[in-house]
Amino acid sequence: MIDITLIGTSALLPIPERALTAAFLSCGGHSILFDCGEGTQSAARKAGVSLVRTDIIALTHYHGDHILGLPGLLKTMWRTERTEPLYVIGPEGLWVKAMEPVLRLTGRTTYPIELIENPTAELQLSTLIKGWDSAKLTPFKTEHKVPSQGYCFTLSRAGKFIPQKAKALGVPVNQWGLLQKGQSVQVGDNIILPEQVLGEPRKGLKFVFTGDTAIYDNLINAAQGADLMISEATYGDNNQAQKAKTNGHMTFAQAAEVAKRADVKQLWLTHYSQTIADPQEYLPNATTIFENTICGEDGMSTTLHFED
Amino acid sequence: MIDITLIGTSALLPIPERALTAAFLSCGGHSILFDCGEGTQSAARKAGVSLVRTDIIALTHYHGDHILGLPGLLKTMWRTERTEPLYVIGPEGLWVKAMEPVLRLTGRTTYPIELIENPTAELQLSTLIKGWDSAKLTPFKTEHKVPSQGYCFTLSRAGKFIPQKAKALGVPVNQWGLLQKGQSVQVGDNIILPEQVLGEPRKGLKFVFTGDTAIYDNLINAAQGADLMISEATYGDNNQAQKAKTNGHMTFAQAAEVAKRADVKQLWLTHYSQTIADPQEYLPNATTIFENTICGEDGMSTTLHFED
Repeated sequence: MIDITLIGTSALLPIPERALTAAFLSCGGHSILFDCGEGTQSAARKAGVSLVRTDIIALTHYHGDHILGLPGLLKTMWRTERTEPLYVIGPEGLWVKAMEPVLRLTGRTTYPIELIENPTAELQLSTLIKGWDSAKLTPFKTEHKVPSQGYCFTLSRAGKFIPQKAKALGVPVNQWGLLQKGQSVQVGDNIILPEQVLGEPRKGLKFVFTGDTAIYDNLINAAQGADLMISEATYGDNNQAQKAKTNGHMTFAQAAEVAKRADVKQLWLTHYSQTIADPQEYLPNATTIFENTICGEDGMSTTLHFED
Repeated sequence: MIDITLIGTSALLPIPERALTAAFLSCGGHSILFDCGEGTQSAARKAGVSLVRTDIIALTHYHGDHILGLPGLLKTMWRTERTEPLYVIGPEGLWVKAMEPVLRLTGRTTYPIELIENPTAELQLSTLIKGWDSAKLTPFKTEHKVPSQGYCFTLSRAGKFIPQKAKALGVPVNQWGLLQKGQSVQVGDNIILPEQVLGEPRKGLKFVFTGDTAIYDNLINAAQGADLMISEATYGDNNQAQKAKTNGHMTFAQAAEVAKRADVKQLWLTHYSQTIADPQEYLPNATTIFENTICGEDGMSTTLHFED
């Protein structure tokens, strides 16, 4: 299962009613923070989420409203005497545009910081974080005014364990767990592979965080079949569609259009312009296109479960 | 008169209940922000204060909890298309430790930023900001782990205007106002000076913001006779006095001791450690020494008026 918390929902400015857009994903004892604007650490505490052990910070781009909380958060991690490495992932410019000045302000840290700039392929998270099996983070290019990317997090699910097959192959019961976890076991002279005792792989889980982007095809491809998509929806009004496109953003209706075409299960809107006093007012612009749309609110959380 | 708003009251970390310590002073249409930690701009909005036209940002030192809100605030000032110069004042290291990395993150601005690093004398504010007559900002060294300073803001007050003297010198009534404002006027061949028509200078106003500091004599001298002192009071317990000294901070009781010895009128405590859940619990530790002590709260404000 995957726990998701939407930490903030504002665009550009942190305002008293809404912290800047960021989301926190927790799964199997590991975690990812998506973006970190000014005030993200405080808003996370308000939402009951501690960020100090976050394994990965995934940045969508380097505009201030998505990164200016980093110096403070990294400092707080230092105060807790964290020692585990922190991975920071982002598009082109990660060092020059963000981390170099950020680390100048943070000062020394008690933990190593590993930068993954502009990854071109999906990241098998077990290669970064021991034991985070079956989890993948896949960046995808988005359409904003600067180099930018969104993220897909997927958790795959092995096929059902078939005890009859394990018995027939002579695997002792105390080794069944290893096979269920995807590891091979030795029985006499034979190596038994997980696929010999498991059924067809089952449907996993998929979470998508768009970052800032205009509507475009690659986004629809990337979000295909997601269980939850947290999407930017900077403008409420349908007649702001062209303005949104020009500024590299989306309207509520455009985010819903993406969700519909990508056949996602649920859509949460976020990254509201300051001019939106009450996002609910514009919700029908999205729900008429994609019914299962919710206006994100600071601190909102959910758990995604495997089917059946 | 001087309006003061305490924007936040936390030390080290912005927490949901308390923003980081910062204060805003407004006087005669001009303003000074003292320190700017992460979240200061949002906390200011909550307190009903707009920071985008702030004339001066006075930094006490460059620890993150006092400066990490700068990149965002400076960016917000840019978004409002501000054109007036912004003065940033601070102790040694202003450029290297703070403003160089801050401005890397802020990016371009629409307004000039003038740095005043480690000023050794009081600043007559009319030399920086046209029309801010009678106002002075005086930094004073404090005892912290890094170069640090507190600030005195003083507003002087001319003597009472004596109409009989002006009449006797033949000054036309429509020129009395200029003399009252401290300007000379010409009457026939004679230059009439303000002191010829004014009584003895009257008591002005004085506000002190300590920044982070241990208790020490220079602080008591600097705060002498202040109408309001906003003082750091990191620790509540009296038995933390030695720890406070070692860390360059004060207890509630030590802040009260300063207020008493400096004969200030009113003391507001701030910069509470995270371990203090309710500052009121420790207030008696201060009030037994200096009665007119108030536990500062986010958004608290007051107006200092001239006497009589």
